[in-house]
Amino acid sequence: MSAASAARRTDPGLEVVVLEATGYAAAGLCGLPYHLAGLVGAAEDLVAYPPSFFRERRGIDLRLGTEVVGVDTDRRLVLHREGPPLGYTALVVATGGRPTTIPLPRPADRPGFVVRTVEDLVDLRALVDAGGVRRALVVGAGYIGLETAEALAGRGVAVTVAERLDRVLPTTLDPEVAAVVEEHVRTHVDLRLGTDAVPLAADEGVDVVVTCTGVGPAADLLAGAGARTGPGGALLVDDRMRTSLPGVWAAGDCIAPYHRVLGAPAFVPLGPTANKTGRVAGTVAAGGDARFAGIVGTAVVKVFDLEVARTGLTLAEARAAGFAAVAADVVSRSRAKYYPGVSPVHVRVVHEPGGRLLGAQLVGREGAAKRVDVVATALHAGLSVDDLADLDLSYAPPYAPVYDPVLVAAQAAQRVTASAG
Amino acid sequence: MSAASAARRTDPGLEVVVLEATGYAAAGLCGLPYHLAGLVGAAEDLVAYPPSFFRERRGIDLRLGTEVVGVDTDRRLVLHREGPPLGYTALVVATGGRPTTIPLPRPADRPGFVVRTVEDLVDLRALVDAGGVRRALVVGAGYIGLETAEALAGRGVAVTVAERLDRVLPTTLDPEVAAVVEEHVRTHVDLRLGTDAVPLAADEGVDVVVTCTGVGPAADLLAGAGARTGPGGALLVDDRMRTSLPGVWAAGDCIAPYHRVLGAPAFVPLGPTANKTGRVAGTVAAGGDARFAGIVGTAVVKVFDLEVARTGLTLAEARAAGFAAVAADVVSRSRAKYYPGVSPVHVRVVHEPGGRLLGAQLVGREGAAKRVDVVATALHAGLSVDDLADLDLSYAPPYAPVYDPVLVAAQAAQRVTASAG
Repeated sequence: MSAASAARRTDPGLEVVVLEATGYAAAGLCGLPYHLAGLVGAAEDLVAYPPSFFRERRGIDLRLGTEVVGVDTDRRLVLHREGPPLGYTALVVATGGRPTTIPLPRPADRPGFVVRTVEDLVDLRALVDAGGVRRALVVGAGYIGLETAEALAGRGVAVTVAERLDRVLPTTLDPEVAAVVEEHVRTHVDLRLGTDAVPLAADEGVDVVVTCTGVGPAADLLAGAGARTGPGGALLVDDRMRTSLPGVWAAGDCIAPYHRVLGAPAFVPLGPTANKTGRVAGTVAAGGDARFAGIVGTAVVKVFDLEVARTGLTLAEARAAGFAAVAADVVSRSRAKYYPGVSPVHVRVVHEPGGRLLGAQLVGREGAAKRVDVVATALHAGLSVDDLADLDLSYAPPYAPVYDPVLVAAQAAQRVTASAG
Repeated sequence: MSAASAARRTDPGLEVVVLEATGYAAAGLCGLPYHLAGLVGAAEDLVAYPPSFFRERRGIDLRLGTEVVGVDTDRRLVLHREGPPLGYTALVVATGGRPTTIPLPRPADRPGFVVRTVEDLVDLRALVDAGGVRRALVVGAGYIGLETAEALAGRGVAVTVAERLDRVLPTTLDPEVAAVVEEHVRTHVDLRLGTDAVPLAADEGVDVVVTCTGVGPAADLLAGAGARTGPGGALLVDDRMRTSLPGVWAAGDCIAPYHRVLGAPAFVPLGPTANKTGRVAGTVAAGGDARFAGIVGTAVVKVFDLEVARTGLTLAEARAAGFAAVAADVVSRSRAKYYPGVSPVHVRVVHEPGGRLLGAQLVGREGAAKRVDVVATALHAGLSVDDLADLDLSYAPPYAPVYDPVLVAAQAAQRVTASAG
């Protein structure tokens, strides 16, 4: 819908048609766990704008419940199940992400869910609302798994989280930082790391199984038509969101946009990038000019009482990408040490000993989520560790120590550099 | 104490002597209002480290209650009241700020206070603790005045705030942004703008008058010895904190450090800059190498339930400095619109129509204080308004909308630029 709206703004005379397989458009999927938790009243509240807004106010021909099954890029036709093929001048593909489920044999009468569409969650929430869920198994301890576990635990459900790997948030954090989160998660749910979920799913006491084992790009439609793909099978695009197919743009969770720190495309399916790349694709497809500046890999998640944030590369990612990376870890404070409510903020800065900044991870009860944006901005600008330590960040006792945790971490990274040099 | 500690680290064999006029060293003066509010138990809790730490652990000869009255830079002697002149090889002057009081005639039996030293606040708090303050007049609606008003109001005191100018936070915010804060302040105290405090101070019902009319540099000691001064009479230093006098460095609230956006020295007396410049001065004075990268004018203050933050230049400051500046104002949200606890965040971005970023002001119940640091980082790096709009900032429903308020403001600034061009 970002692409459609941008196309409309770019060319008010253009016919803009949107084909959407589900019954919802512009749905805030990131809000699904909060709907499950009962924090968001109706599923409709997750929708940025109702269909009538797009149809009447923006003049967009939005067709819900219309699944696209093929694209003929030679004849510029889209094939779908609701009628004859639809012709186009410019095509924007925004098919999003798709859960990478694992097969979990379970009794036929045991409901299984995947947290991805509004419909999935409406059904699961109805079951919880009806009191039909006493014990739940959440498969996967990535951010969707932990958000779902928190939502269910908050509803009084006894939750077991099973993760195949040996730590929580395995694609988000380095192990040393994940350990801080793990300790906190264990105070709220039964966490099983390095565990095969299959026997747990067969347990008779488990009322419901929710699979949250990751998301891949829903790129089949265009990949089948010959589009070039990259990391994780995601569609490759240039900075104007052009795919390798003529007349076809792509945006959202189905693409691998340029990662400024890696200097290469990366698959990091998140809402802000989906929205921004949608705008660029819609603008350019409609004849306008726009470019996407790239991502730096920023993400944040609430895990029970913790804010967990990362940007750039983890130490593991940096080394895998060939950087001679090291890490500096500090535990600083969210406020002045004498101010009520002060709590620890763990910060890891990943960098090259020569001073190149590569990333950061922050965990704390407050002040981690938005503080990561300082490092994200520094990465976007190509600042060094020394630059990071020099920043004029805000200080007042209720909000930060005199040296903000980011500055304390940058100073620690400078010392790592000094001792390495 | 930052300078002394840095000197000690730089040269472990150096004799480091600190002369301090008051009875406290390394005191967090920014915490004084919170001590008054009763949020900080003992005044000693405001001290970063006790004197014994500096004396025993760091080997610093710390002499409290020792007021310096003169400097003879030719003979390299410091004159003080507690004994014979003290010789030095290198002198670091960190005399800090000094309240710019206004004369307020009042009955002799009416206590008057200035919020600047620990001793002042200990006396005022004792009076409040004893129940001797029912009505207080706070003179000045700058950040110290508003913090003090909040502290007294929180103790059950009826507070009148009198400000000579026609708005709150007059040196911090543009009038349009100050209006948001003003409305909130009026729900907590009796606020009198454009008002002469003298008749109010004479009111018999006022138990105590607290003067918070601003801070100037305590630069007399060195200015009297011939040191060059600049904005507000503050000491001029280079990026190594050298004054114009041989063998004399200066740091803290008594100097005017380099302002990266202005491209000139500026007097912005705040804790983080004082600490950082102290480190540089101490390091260089002891024979080491360090440079101060400059400030961008970041500040934040809690005003009752609001976070109020600014960085760079206000529109008024930018125009006074000769920039062809304009402003873009938005009201965004602290969280996803469906997430409980979401509240408005007002953001003003100040910029040149050509795209140069000059500053920002943020006000909101949450998410303003640390969000300003994104703009502070962007200013430090010299990013443009377009760059700001491109940033990969963190998103999760509990912490931000998909487009963070800073991005929404940057987009608005882009539209101002587009319509101006």
